[in-house]
Amino acid sequence: MFETAELGHRIAKTVFNRAVPKLRSDLLDFQYRLKENGTFPVIVLISGVRGAGKGETVNLLNEWMDPRHILTHAFDTPSDEERDRPPMWRYWRALPPKGKIGILFGSWYTAPIIDRVFRATGRADLLQSIEEINRFEKMLADEGALVLKFWFHLSREAQKKRLKALRSDPETRWRVTRRDTDFFKVYDRFYRVSEETLRATSTADAPWIVVEGADPPYRSLTVGRALLGAMKKRLDAPAERLRPASKPAPIARPIDRRNVLTELDLSRSLTEKAYKAERSAWQGRLNLLARHAKFPRLSITLAFEGMDAAGKGSTIRRVTGGLDARYYHVIPVAAPTDEERAQPYLWRFWRNLPRKGRVTIYDRTWYGRVLVERIEGFCSGADWMRAYTEINDFEEQLARSSTVLCKFWMQISRDEQLRRFKERERMRFKRFKITAEDWRNRGKWDLYQAAAADMIERTSTASAPWTLVEANDKKFARVKVLRTICKRIERALDAL
Amino acid sequence: MFETAELGHRIAKTVFNRAVPKLRSDLLDFQYRLKENGTFPVIVLISGVRGAGKGETVNLLNEWMDPRHILTHAFDTPSDEERDRPPMWRYWRALPPKGKIGILFGSWYTAPIIDRVFRATGRADLLQSIEEINRFEKMLADEGALVLKFWFHLSREAQKKRLKALRSDPETRWRVTRRDTDFFKVYDRFYRVSEETLRATSTADAPWIVVEGADPPYRSLTVGRALLGAMKKRLDAPAERLRPASKPAPIARPIDRRNVLTELDLSRSLTEKAYKAERSAWQGRLNLLARHAKFPRLSITLAFEGMDAAGKGSTIRRVTGGLDARYYHVIPVAAPTDEERAQPYLWRFWRNLPRKGRVTIYDRTWYGRVLVERIEGFCSGADWMRAYTEINDFEEQLARSSTVLCKFWMQISRDEQLRRFKERERMRFKRFKITAEDWRNRGKWDLYQAAAADMIERTSTASAPWTLVEANDKKFARVKVLRTICKRIERALDAL
Repeated sequence: MFETAELGHRIAKTVFNRAVPKLRSDLLDFQYRLKENGTFPVIVLISGVRGAGKGETVNLLNEWMDPRHILTHAFDTPSDEERDRPPMWRYWRALPPKGKIGILFGSWYTAPIIDRVFRATGRADLLQSIEEINRFEKMLADEGALVLKFWFHLSREAQKKRLKALRSDPETRWRVTRRDTDFFKVYDRFYRVSEETLRATSTADAPWIVVEGADPPYRSLTVGRALLGAMKKRLDAPAERLRPASKPAPIARPIDRRNVLTELDLSRSLTEKAYKAERSAWQGRLNLLARHAKFPRLSITLAFEGMDAAGKGSTIRRVTGGLDARYYHVIPVAAPTDEERAQPYLWRFWRNLPRKGRVTIYDRTWYGRVLVERIEGFCSGADWMRAYTEINDFEEQLARSSTVLCKFWMQISRDEQLRRFKERERMRFKRFKITAEDWRNRGKWDLYQAAAADMIERTSTASAPWTLVEANDKKFARVKVLRTICKRIERALDAL
Repeated sequence: MFETAELGHRIAKTVFNRAVPKLRSDLLDFQYRLKENGTFPVIVLISGVRGAGKGETVNLLNEWMDPRHILTHAFDTPSDEERDRPPMWRYWRALPPKGKIGILFGSWYTAPIIDRVFRATGRADLLQSIEEINRFEKMLADEGALVLKFWFHLSREAQKKRLKALRSDPETRWRVTRRDTDFFKVYDRFYRVSEETLRATSTADAPWIVVEGADPPYRSLTVGRALLGAMKKRLDAPAERLRPASKPAPIARPIDRRNVLTELDLSRSLTEKAYKAERSAWQGRLNLLARHAKFPRLSITLAFEGMDAAGKGSTIRRVTGGLDARYYHVIPVAAPTDEERAQPYLWRFWRNLPRKGRVTIYDRTWYGRVLVERIEGFCSGADWMRAYTEINDFEEQLARSSTVLCKFWMQISRDEQLRRFKERERMRFKRFKITAEDWRNRGKWDLYQAAAADMIERTSTASAPWTLVEANDKKFARVKVLRTICKRIERALDAL
């Protein structure tokens, strides 16, 4: 993969100077068209070996275009707020919104490659990272992002020459750091690991562009033209091609109409007396768990889904009743803000990820994509189909960063929903809870149930299982939820 | 101030139990009305002595109302991202948006009081903090926020009794920490310092409500009813009273029509040769300064204002030309997003404050309030009048947290603007830069000039002076800007 970047590519300074004015004004032109178009971001990754001109190229791109619409991010040591979340959090934070160009100096490739080169990780870790990166970049592409990945290469010889030249000049000697020497020592290993990574992540959606870094005019023109070409191709494409329509596979419904939800025994209930005793006991236990010495090493995320009036809100209040308000945060999922709409679907959930030692409770969740958005047609079939994979990836990352994720589906019968709707219409402070939309959704009961059963089947994993809650009896439901949360936290604490 | 909170207030448990159901449903009712109304946030501060029931009350408020629309923030040790910014940054971050209730456990009062009690600061520091807090809270009130400040008090005797009771029970002995003992030792001093602070910050906009903390039913009902009463009063008020119209004082224009801008010598210019030499020299110097060993202890904020086509964008590009793209961020100020509109005016500038070691460049700034918003009537007269004070406060906080703030007003003549407008219409990649709005604004030239002169006069301070840039000659302007930035950074580095 790097052979073509060791050919000694170079172009004459005069050729470069002749080419630049046109390239600059074309780049500017397309940068403004991108901004006006506003339907997708451009994400430029700048990676590669040390001393191959990465920094200079980033500066040049900012000089050639309008830096006001470029977001450049360099990833240094993570801050403590970043270390408290999954590793990808800092990259999600840095994604450019639609209409902008984001230049990422260092990226999700840096840690997997460096860790493997210096043997902090094994081969299986690298392979897993590659797999995850491919899924992440596919998601970006599916969301419409134009992803350009540049790898700056220097041959061993060129690298050696560069270090020697820097060292021999007293003016530049200080620029050769210990880190440069360390890296040069492992040049061959770095070559092999990065080549394998690049091969395995060079996909149709986001191919790598390897750039020989020795000759500044050559590398600058290469990067500038590649960026221009990619923006031009996308912006000149007919509008309908921007988001290809694809037919989702129809969901096979079981012919006997039975599914995980129909099988629930909704008659399960608790007496008032048993409820009071159990509720207090589990709330007390939850309270104690939250003061456990090791609790600050966990994050807790509780996700509540269910039909309207299934009791999500009131159950959440019984959970918060066992917790200290300083450490929980309840997020009611409503329509996305305009900042959220300018980002990939899951961005608004990533941005709210809690630090460790905190409990985050979602009243409706990222599963909206495969429930309401699917049924109401707010997104395309292709969008919600891929959401299953994206959600599984998201939840796996949570699990790996010590997040206890409990997902509750609160199930009620159609009759029980009707009874509760009517009650809400009668009661004073519940009147805000019932709208015309609730009645409309009720009309689509079967569709919602089928979508929910499908969702549960596809997204119940070992690290993030669904808990189905028989919720016709609120008392039974609340205790089941409280108990599940306690048990999951206990298991997580034991495993620490 | 605390005497009335040492009377041994208490109410019978039975009275409490009878009162709560109605209070709860009223609170819920008004919480939903607040959400529907959506024009202002409620900010509840919970402060006071240890053991007076602060935590319990916060939990109770969350229990009584719908926790999904309450944002509770507890302020612990600041994170490294917080320590890299002015102390108020973490509180701006936590402000609830319009329509929500924010409960702040610990607040901008905590550090000033505690630091003074333990003699980390002098009396002058406390007085300055009080002054700043009053201005901050006035801003919140002017922005429409309903601010409720609760102080939980325990008499010396009650405090002593509490510690004794906790210590005597093996089950609760662990709850008495070193910190409790330390605090009890300085009880009298804490009493005096906090009383003085409370007296001086109990304003019409945000009065303190002192609550005797010994009796849980008493304190809970007191807080619940105060919150309900305040929400009710505001929400039941006739709509026009929500934002009182006030006539701003008319701006006195000098009778000879001379001002700081008319006095500039716009004929100042540089030859091409001198420009090239000077530009390179200052860019080089800027580049060296940014690598200075002490540079990571500074934040640099560059603010650019000026008439349309005054050369802000092209000057910014000459500044970024001297910097490494990894460490600067250019922010073009456009219309606020919906998340920004749900917050006080300055929030969108606070949220973008950089960490130390970074350069943030604003193309148009917070001064939009007293320029375009004033002239186009986007905000009321009272709003832009108070902006002068708010901006001065904001900039003073930046200065105190080691931010070098350079503010540039780029001044061109009316004729020069016309020439540039016409040039823009002719040139290919500049055509995006000229719109019908630019022509409309040009029609209001005199108004903009008067507003700018007024603004410069009122906001040029020792720590954040305006630099007026004669910009008819772009070369002269760019060099003046580069030189000013270098000199300011040098002075700041020397002072470290």
